[in-house]
Amino acid sequence: MAKAPLPVSPLAPKGGFPELPRIDGVRFASGAAGVRYQNRTDVMLVEICAGASVAGVFTRSSTRSAPVLDCERKLAALTESSDQGFGIVVNSGNSNAFTGRAGDQTVEAVTAEAGRVLGIPAAHVFSASTGVIGEPFAPEKITHILAELAGKLDADGADGAARAIMTTDTFPKGATETLTLSGHEVKIAGFAKGSGMIAPDMATMLAYVFTDAAISRAALQSMLSQATKRSFNAVTVDSDTSTSDSLMVAATGKAGNPQIADLDSTDAKAFYAALEAVLKDLALQLVRDGEGATKLIEVQVTGAANDADADRVARAIANSPLVKTAAAGEDPNWGRVVMAVGKSGAVADRDRLTIKFGDILVAENGWVSPDYREEQGAAYMKQQELRIAVDMGLGMGAATVWTCDLTHGYISINADYRS
Amino acid sequence: MAKAPLPVSPLAPKGGFPELPRIDGVRFASGAAGVRYQNRTDVMLVEICAGASVAGVFTRSSTRSAPVLDCERKLAALTESSDQGFGIVVNSGNSNAFTGRAGDQTVEAVTAEAGRVLGIPAAHVFSASTGVIGEPFAPEKITHILAELAGKLDADGADGAARAIMTTDTFPKGATETLTLSGHEVKIAGFAKGSGMIAPDMATMLAYVFTDAAISRAALQSMLSQATKRSFNAVTVDSDTSTSDSLMVAATGKAGNPQIADLDSTDAKAFYAALEAVLKDLALQLVRDGEGATKLIEVQVTGAANDADADRVARAIANSPLVKTAAAGEDPNWGRVVMAVGKSGAVADRDRLTIKFGDILVAENGWVSPDYREEQGAAYMKQQELRIAVDMGLGMGAATVWTCDLTHGYISINADYRS
Repeated sequence: MAKAPLPVSPLAPKGGFPELPRIDGVRFASGAAGVRYQNRTDVMLVEICAGASVAGVFTRSSTRSAPVLDCERKLAALTESSDQGFGIVVNSGNSNAFTGRAGDQTVEAVTAEAGRVLGIPAAHVFSASTGVIGEPFAPEKITHILAELAGKLDADGADGAARAIMTTDTFPKGATETLTLSGHEVKIAGFAKGSGMIAPDMATMLAYVFTDAAISRAALQSMLSQATKRSFNAVTVDSDTSTSDSLMVAATGKAGNPQIADLDSTDAKAFYAALEAVLKDLALQLVRDGEGATKLIEVQVTGAANDADADRVARAIANSPLVKTAAAGEDPNWGRVVMAVGKSGAVADRDRLTIKFGDILVAENGWVSPDYREEQGAAYMKQQELRIAVDMGLGMGAATVWTCDLTHGYISINADYRS
Repeated sequence: MAKAPLPVSPLAPKGGFPELPRIDGVRFASGAAGVRYQNRTDVMLVEICAGASVAGVFTRSSTRSAPVLDCERKLAALTESSDQGFGIVVNSGNSNAFTGRAGDQTVEAVTAEAGRVLGIPAAHVFSASTGVIGEPFAPEKITHILAELAGKLDADGADGAARAIMTTDTFPKGATETLTLSGHEVKIAGFAKGSGMIAPDMATMLAYVFTDAAISRAALQSMLSQATKRSFNAVTVDSDTSTSDSLMVAATGKAGNPQIADLDSTDAKAFYAALEAVLKDLALQLVRDGEGATKLIEVQVTGAANDADADRVARAIANSPLVKTAAAGEDPNWGRVVMAVGKSGAVADRDRLTIKFGDILVAENGWVSPDYREEQGAAYMKQQELRIAVDMGLGMGAATVWTCDLTHGYISINADYRS
């Protein structure tokens, strides 16, 4: 494990980790428990005030991890309001996935200890673990540090928490929005981790978002599920789906706005838009930190027979190793886009397809565009952010998916992760 | 295009290209037309005697190439017997895919000229093109050489033909079987090309198989379709499906065996077994020449709820970039196998899964096996040929898929193919 740290992705946001506002009712702590890594933090603890609403979405993998199964059960058992607060405990270095019954017991012990140090029931403590799959994970690996973390909880600790949950990430990922709801200023702030095993159905990713908005748990869960489709579920680094994906949102209600319960209200729509913006920002940062990534690629499909077909085409393009290596090589190889459309399984008519790289019309009517010149495409591909647009010419179906290129960096990182 | 030739794959068959027997009724020629490559052959012409049965299977891509569309139409229009022979003309260097109406006209002109030089109708000439997608392809690029090729047709020319159709292949691929049907010796000999864009639904691959067996066209087509499922459709290099995949078989009937028409006859079963063996040999050679491959990986799934689920799991493992990079790094990272099972969409129960690397029991009952030691797995992964076996513990569904590892070589080849 004495590997040199990976260089920061060239696609990292220029400004670095954003300054996240304090969210009234939420405090963070992080520390180095020594789960696997040396000389870095690897556990975060979050305390959320009583009366908060919490919501979550998780990987649908049939081999999902013990913490994910535990979170699902606890969320399902929650009633709308509670006079007790919530806790979140997350470690990096071991995913506690495929660890059998012992893995379940570890989650029980860890969340019990976190509940004890926070003074809340274990049923209110959500956990996540990220790292290597299938290694035994004794609870003592992290329980020994929880009391210490509880003693240093800090409303300004989000930055440190975001760093503690990183694995192969090359930069911590944060995003924030501020809006006004019925005259009350409301803040949303979140952070995420993830860089490999990022795929259609969630991602190897953990994301935690906090807001001081007052919103019912049902409304929050509904908004979260919807916004996930357009953000985390629309990014793919390598088509591999993690066993640990978890995205949770907690709303403390401290902003004082009238509680949002009706999804059709003006406040609900405004809050949804801001929530989706934060999630999309975080999701794109995952792609920007895609293992080995040097290009951010937006794949936009329009004119498909229906939305499902558009999504199928967009993912076929975004997951194609040949499209992704062409991007890495700055090769305007639109033939590989045609190939991906063809293999997607969506209804397609060669002679109605239109393909653009950015604003450059590359192909139309089943053939290369008469005005297209290879030099144009080659110049376009040198950009760091690319857009591949495909119009199927058939109907109104549309979808957008984000991905990154496939480079030697991906191979180096993943052919050598455990050694 | 002044790139150094790729080194021969370390997985290439040790004996080199096999000595293919003459197939009575079939002659081959190859030559250098200069389609794209310099200093190498790039066109093959095959002449098949009158009375032969021909059969074919092709890519199902919705953006399939002009030659594929033409072959499909011509095969569908054939009647059982014919007093005129057949021809096959194939070029490398340009795939004539996504080339619009002009591409169709090129196929028409090429097959017409091939028919003229062979003295048969164009309706009996099948063609294929492999290489870059989307580049205009004038028929003159190859028609100029066809008369010359017709003049040097040779029953021993299969080796040269196999070389003329290569693209990124690092070795030519051939296979042969001999069997006795009702006292008559029957030979099957074939060759194939393909190395990248190899995927579930056929592959970027061309394969031509010849036999002197007497067999009806209907029986031959039926056997070919069945055997394709267990050979070419069970290999995957990079999950990308070509627009040009074509596999054709021609049976000349010169062996003198009683014609096979009943699929349940003893002769039919013997012939099917030999045909499947040739196709499987060729298909595995494609994987052995997978772009950048250093390991051949057999993924064997048993105990699934049904065959379709088994296939889903096997392909999820075989196409996972994380499983494939782990193999490249000789990392016994069975957690990634668990991940792939989980994302496959197949019914799975963590606590019933069994995973083996070769004969080594790695995981069972939802956890790492108590007897497994990491050193065993690490030693196993150093082998050139690996077997990953997953038993789902649920039912009788089974499937086997072959793939290769994902290495720096794949990136180098594909990030730079057109430049």
